[in-house]
Amino acid sequence: MFAVTILGNNSALPMHDRHPTSQVMYCHDQLFLVDCGEGTQIQMNRYKIRRNRIRHIFISHLHGDHYFGLPGLLTSYGLNGRTEDLWLYAPAPLQSILELQFSAADIILPYILHFVPLQEEGILLDEKRITVSCFQVSHRIPCWGFLFKEKEKPLKLNAQKLQEYAIPSSFYQRLKAGEDYTAKDGSIVKNEWVTHPPDPPLSYAYCADTVYDETIAEKIKGAGLVYHEATYLADHEEKARSRAHSTTRQAASIALKAQAGRLLIGHFSSRYEILDGFLTEAKEIFENTDLALEGATYLVPG
Amino acid sequence: MFAVTILGNNSALPMHDRHPTSQVMYCHDQLFLVDCGEGTQIQMNRYKIRRNRIRHIFISHLHGDHYFGLPGLLTSYGLNGRTEDLWLYAPAPLQSILELQFSAADIILPYILHFVPLQEEGILLDEKRITVSCFQVSHRIPCWGFLFKEKEKPLKLNAQKLQEYAIPSSFYQRLKAGEDYTAKDGSIVKNEWVTHPPDPPLSYAYCADTVYDETIAEKIKGAGLVYHEATYLADHEEKARSRAHSTTRQAASIALKAQAGRLLIGHFSSRYEILDGFLTEAKEIFENTDLALEGATYLVPG
Repeated sequence: MFAVTILGNNSALPMHDRHPTSQVMYCHDQLFLVDCGEGTQIQMNRYKIRRNRIRHIFISHLHGDHYFGLPGLLTSYGLNGRTEDLWLYAPAPLQSILELQFSAADIILPYILHFVPLQEEGILLDEKRITVSCFQVSHRIPCWGFLFKEKEKPLKLNAQKLQEYAIPSSFYQRLKAGEDYTAKDGSIVKNEWVTHPPDPPLSYAYCADTVYDETIAEKIKGAGLVYHEATYLADHEEKARSRAHSTTRQAASIALKAQAGRLLIGHFSSRYEILDGFLTEAKEIFENTDLALEGATYLVPG
Repeated sequence: MFAVTILGNNSALPMHDRHPTSQVMYCHDQLFLVDCGEGTQIQMNRYKIRRNRIRHIFISHLHGDHYFGLPGLLTSYGLNGRTEDLWLYAPAPLQSILELQFSAADIILPYILHFVPLQEEGILLDEKRITVSCFQVSHRIPCWGFLFKEKEKPLKLNAQKLQEYAIPSSFYQRLKAGEDYTAKDGSIVKNEWVTHPPDPPLSYAYCADTVYDETIAEKIKGAGLVYHEATYLADHEEKARSRAHSTTRQAASIALKAQAGRLLIGHFSSRYEILDGFLTEAKEIFENTDLALEGATYLVPG
């Protein structure tokens, strides 16, 4: 599964039974936590998230609605006897904050917490099937987006053609990697005669909190699923700019420019109880848009 | 109203739709917040607490389940445009933690936050009708209980006797303060002939997280309502001691020794989904016991 589950979709003030930002990203067999607003561990209980499978946590920036749930989650992992290492990718000052909190509570975590400060754009995590990289977005304080991306997949074999050219199965792996096959009689079977192109890599771009910034579209170009904040409806564009947030139309414009497959919008301002207008406005610019609803899971399209 | 509303009654791990510790104390026209576990501001929404009327917040100790909701609440006050001063009574290290958090978020609160470090037992707040004082309890890290207490009230006048002795109404205030009345003919009307004793002062003792400690009973002697933690059932006394917590029977014993009017127990361990046993066990020792249930309000008996 390559998908994201929304745990919180509201902006800073929790209201209307909506919670501050947090998402769980599923990349095949791995779970990642992206931001961790207050109440995230309670939302994890509600939506039955298998939190012990999370090994990497990504925090976009240090406004409280994106991390005030983290100290509690880290403490609870300890109380639950976690021993597996945990990696935390976040702006540098978070490390001192956590250290002070643990020291004041006289807590020593029973697991190793690796703190990785976010400093420059690039790859944070390079796993067998995926990479996770960070990119800068434009907010009032340093703020990072995250791109979860499958690696290039091997070519697909064309079973019928393999038989036709009598290629031994021992050579299949090399075909998948792109090699041509040379038969015993010296004749060459070109790779493209017996393979199909692989499925394109799946990718999810989390654009965090940001003002409208077209450079983001370049950074996430071609992402299958894009999450972009839409704190305000379009008529509050000036308010959005002044708070370094975005509107529905701006979020949709970024998805359009990025040639995204699908758009998720969230981080709704507490001033809106009803969210219908968000969807309508964004769809006018980018049809394949969904509201990020708490408890819902959104698949990354291929 | 002299009463307390429970916002969270669970111990450290939020479970079974129970939340970490937080209470709102009503002392006539004032609201006080006592502890502020993660999710407190969300619980305030749920139970329609008039949070803007809170001017004083008391934090017992720096285990996260008693204060991880505080940074979010303080930030939200700011986002909501609070300008009225706020007083925060808490162990000293909390000040640096909050300063680091506000600095990382580049936030300047639009109201003045007065930080009062808890250092010794005694009166923290001396208002017209009440005092709030703190007392030490025995936990793994420095931990404080709080006693909310009405001041001595004036004597009550006996209307019939006032008439009988023809005492002018201009002297009533002095009668209430305990003076005798001297009539024009020099005869003395003794105060006790024309007054009734005042109602005893109401008081609420919040005993925070603590191991069984009989000295606490002395500190809260005669309190109308006592909140005492009961993290475990009685058969987990050894576990309670090792974690510096209390059992049902221990909480009830403190209430009995303190000659309390009524006992509230809370801070239930996540291992218990059903709480019936807590009430049964405590009542065996102290009959007038209630479970601290979230959203419920408990009156301080006179």
